[in-house]
Amino acid sequence: MDSLKQAIRERGEIINEDVLKVDSFLNHQIDWKLMLQAAQDIYEHFKHEKINKIVTIETSGIAPALYTAQLFDVPLVFLKKSKPSTMNQDIYQTNVHSFTKQIDYTLSGSSSYLNKEDHVLLIDDFLANGEACLGALNILKQAQASVAGIAVLIEKAHQKGHQRLLELGYEVYALARIDTMNSGVITFLEEES
Amino acid sequence: MDSLKQAIRERGEIINEDVLKVDSFLNHQIDWKLMLQAAQDIYEHFKHEKINKIVTIETSGIAPALYTAQLFDVPLVFLKKSKPSTMNQDIYQTNVHSFTKQIDYTLSGSSSYLNKEDHVLLIDDFLANGEACLGALNILKQAQASVAGIAVLIEKAHQKGHQRLLELGYEVYALARIDTMNSGVITFLEEES
Repeated sequence: MDSLKQAIRERGEIINEDVLKVDSFLNHQIDWKLMLQAAQDIYEHFKHEKINKIVTIETSGIAPALYTAQLFDVPLVFLKKSKPSTMNQDIYQTNVHSFTKQIDYTLSGSSSYLNKEDHVLLIDDFLANGEACLGALNILKQAQASVAGIAVLIEKAHQKGHQRLLELGYEVYALARIDTMNSGVITFLEEES
Repeated sequence: MDSLKQAIRERGEIINEDVLKVDSFLNHQIDWKLMLQAAQDIYEHFKHEKINKIVTIETSGIAPALYTAQLFDVPLVFLKKSKPSTMNQDIYQTNVHSFTKQIDYTLSGSSSYLNKEDHVLLIDDFLANGEACLGALNILKQAQASVAGIAVLIEKAHQKGHQRLLELGYEVYALARIDTMNSGVITFLEEES
């Protein structure tokens, strides 16, 4: 997706070879137009699927996932990174390790909104080692929901997340696949057709 | 806002006289159409203001705030409930106590995206005691941003948040003002014109 790659190049900040900061349009300030374009791209890719629910992980996945939910005209469910006091029955939970933030957290979702009738498109902002996605997929497996595919805005293709998800049989659609971030220069993998 | 009040009545869950659970359309599953309608209502109310940025607090404020940002055609900034490892310079911070969840947390925002040039509309999902809003206003004050007003989807009008914000001179626009939730029945305050 060209406009996303351009935003990454022009407005992203390379912290080191592994960490890209995109607080200017995705992770702190949100560029609504770019999120809408991302959702339109994701919708075009998956519109042949009979998706009845979009699922994402709080927080930065919500914006592109909301527009995608609008395009499919289905509800959005965001998985929570803690177990809130008012969401205490019939909860699916799993533990996730974040390599980026070096923390562990509990991911949770309610059986009231995720069940075996659901055919889900999972959307997240970043794919690196795949830990967050695998946690979300674990929740969806507990819910017996089927998964149409996984869409991520930015993939760090030199990390192993994509491959892990492919090996589990999932379709992964990444809008911008970063190959390397050496010496302050971002190179992207060519898009697969 | 009638459709929001209807959603609260029909799809909300009264946990006790003080706690309303709206996981079915706002706090876990998100009804995109209702969020768009909320944003349209907020936009109509504040469109005379020269707002150049929408600010919200993660997580549940993001959906209505994103649509509002689209209608104003301005960026959205969401304040974070923790200080992430990749957001470590020129950060405004304040401590917030949540009476609902009985926790304290650090709210933070970056000087890169909030400054004295900004005329901000603050949006949040709930207004109860006003602690989260006051925290956000503290961040905006540190940034020397001006505040056009505060819009919330659901106000618990029997709690003191609205009054505290009025006394500080802010305009508060609440789409659904809950008066009482006694005996499992929700009554709303009449809308002010």
